[in-house]
Amino acid sequence: MNIAVAQSGGPTAAINSSLAGVFERAGDYGEIGQVFGSINGIEGMINDELVPLVNILTTDHDIDLLKRTPSTVLGSCRYKLRTYDPNDSVTETEYMNIVNTLEKHDIGAFFYIGGNDSMDTVMKLDKYLRAVGKNIKVIGIPKTIDNDLPGTDHTPGFGSAAKYVATTLQEIIRDSRVYSIQSITIVEIMGRNAGWLTASTCVLRANGEPAPHLIYVPEAYKNGFSIEKFLADVESMMKRYRAVIVAVSEGIVPDDRNYVKTGADAFGHTDNSGVAKYLEKCCADRFGCKVRSIELNVMQRCSSHMASATDLAEAEMVGKAAVDAAMSGDSGRMMGFRRISNEPYRVEVISISAEEAANRERFLPDNWITADHSDITMDALGYFLPLIQGEVIPEYRNGIPVHFRLNQ
Amino acid sequence: MNIAVAQSGGPTAAINSSLAGVFERAGDYGEIGQVFGSINGIEGMINDELVPLVNILTTDHDIDLLKRTPSTVLGSCRYKLRTYDPNDSVTETEYMNIVNTLEKHDIGAFFYIGGNDSMDTVMKLDKYLRAVGKNIKVIGIPKTIDNDLPGTDHTPGFGSAAKYVATTLQEIIRDSRVYSIQSITIVEIMGRNAGWLTASTCVLRANGEPAPHLIYVPEAYKNGFSIEKFLADVESMMKRYRAVIVAVSEGIVPDDRNYVKTGADAFGHTDNSGVAKYLEKCCADRFGCKVRSIELNVMQRCSSHMASATDLAEAEMVGKAAVDAAMSGDSGRMMGFRRISNEPYRVEVISISAEEAANRERFLPDNWITADHSDITMDALGYFLPLIQGEVIPEYRNGIPVHFRLNQ
Repeated sequence: MNIAVAQSGGPTAAINSSLAGVFERAGDYGEIGQVFGSINGIEGMINDELVPLVNILTTDHDIDLLKRTPSTVLGSCRYKLRTYDPNDSVTETEYMNIVNTLEKHDIGAFFYIGGNDSMDTVMKLDKYLRAVGKNIKVIGIPKTIDNDLPGTDHTPGFGSAAKYVATTLQEIIRDSRVYSIQSITIVEIMGRNAGWLTASTCVLRANGEPAPHLIYVPEAYKNGFSIEKFLADVESMMKRYRAVIVAVSEGIVPDDRNYVKTGADAFGHTDNSGVAKYLEKCCADRFGCKVRSIELNVMQRCSSHMASATDLAEAEMVGKAAVDAAMSGDSGRMMGFRRISNEPYRVEVISISAEEAANRERFLPDNWITADHSDITMDALGYFLPLIQGEVIPEYRNGIPVHFRLNQ
Repeated sequence: MNIAVAQSGGPTAAINSSLAGVFERAGDYGEIGQVFGSINGIEGMINDELVPLVNILTTDHDIDLLKRTPSTVLGSCRYKLRTYDPNDSVTETEYMNIVNTLEKHDIGAFFYIGGNDSMDTVMKLDKYLRAVGKNIKVIGIPKTIDNDLPGTDHTPGFGSAAKYVATTLQEIIRDSRVYSIQSITIVEIMGRNAGWLTASTCVLRANGEPAPHLIYVPEAYKNGFSIEKFLADVESMMKRYRAVIVAVSEGIVPDDRNYVKTGADAFGHTDNSGVAKYLEKCCADRFGCKVRSIELNVMQRCSSHMASATDLAEAEMVGKAAVDAAMSGDSGRMMGFRRISNEPYRVEVISISAEEAANRERFLPDNWITADHSDITMDALGYFLPLIQGEVIPEYRNGIPVHFRLNQ
């Protein structure tokens, strides 16, 4: 019997560690022959584009480098598998193609590393395979910097993103404080509907740093984000701080008819990128002082040079646990974590129904958002801090981190 | 006798290392009493805002942390000292205030860490002090991520910025390659008139990475940057690469009447920030594929977590050499480097007239720009590579780098 593994959705610093975990644990099972990598997520299964991982991970050094390489070495996709419908010939063909690929290569288990949408694929494929009587296991391995998957304490990829964001924000804070004039710096952080990553900037307070002085998460503004209230918050902080620092989730939507949301991805997700730029303009118009907006952009999801060692180790751990789960007969499940304690930090690996994780989002607890909706409470600190602990030192060649590369 | 030191201009990761160098070398001279830090550059000298560094750098650990802390611990300014004119009462008062501060605190030498504009201040202050018969030495210590100071092989701060940009760009390259669709990623890098930092992205080729596929520096486009030529370059790369990566200097000005330059700082520098966003729009309109623009923003100048060990060591070295120069009677000079060899990398510290460095810029050699103006030649590699060598591992507390902080 062989197995296959694919990566999907947006890149993270940890997704290749989960892949390495699957590959390594498979080697512990004598009954597993090949581990195939599916190129570009589920598309590789539909189009029969598989690569035996043993051909590309030829040494321990390859595996070690892979774990420290960001993004998805096997490529990714945003392909959404439709619900099986025998009356829809396109869908029928898609599912049949996947089964053909699985059977052609004697694949007894398929592992899908991804976020909410990928868990939807896990759920659908598992249901189909059961319905057509195929004994092929499908297991989801979570990853998303958004940390918004239900049923797990947190998701691989989040801790590294949070560590990078905190480190970078602290440097931006140093940068913003140099001049003797009043300034406002607005930093836009990823998170469309869930504010976990933006909220995690509160970790700087563990080291006595009061900034960011204002933290805006989407959960607090489901009924609209008032520009007037925002400007009043900023004005109040300007009385206390010469360099005001604001962290804002990309998903904040100003309640202002001049604000235009642009773009939408294949899943219908709206791209709100640009809220910081808009708030910058509002502040400049109102206060006339130095205002700067900064988008942390894709760097926050792919900066493996500032990865959390805890995060990468856990990503590998769930990759291994996924193989164990499939080999013990599980299917249609997503691996996850249950937190046992913060100090000392202890988690156990669990699995939940992929259906429970699919297409739903997990939000910040209400009581972590301050009553005035402009900050995060200290309760959140205990949750976030363990996830950013430990450093992963890159291997350097010519002064530049070395990445594992499958091809150009 | 005491001495004073100030920091000016935009932040870098290395400017505090030069400050530490001045402080440490001063301790080697029995005749030097206090080392005063001037708050917010020359403004601190005008307003008599000085702090004895011994009060804030109380332990070896403080000094060690300071060297690894980005930006300017003493604050900065963009204050331009006017040419002395006895008929202009404002200017007269300014110079008299500086002399009062110098004499009140028995300051025999003043060190100014900064870029082109700061060297103008060094030159003017030295001329004035000589003219009024004051035996007070003024020495400039170079720093700028722009690497554009004349008379020196390179400037402290540049190597760390280049190392951060190369590291981050490589991660963006990984991120851009995940999907199976055609994409274009345009990364905007600091440099108004000089393209050193943008050109330095060619270092990735030392490790076999062909991206960035197009590198645009201002030196190649003094007569205007044609959008049509740019789109033709991109189209040509799209035939070879699924994920085209473009590095563009912020100073590139599209030769297009729809392109509007915005803003200007206190020195009359135009803020061209936004060229990548503009090129993104042009590519999206023409090619209709996935296009993303990324501004590396202030992170490229303040990311001490990815500092070059060579850069920080050299920044400290010129700080120390500046004290030696003043003590041996020099004044009106800027410290710098002369490169002796690339392999092995060897430099010697030199000094040049501040007048030679002031208000002038040093540009990329013409022969480092390819004939088609869209790339950098391999000749540049030997120059850039030694400057990014060696890592400076931060000290971590709670998973976050520890910075030296003078105040909140």
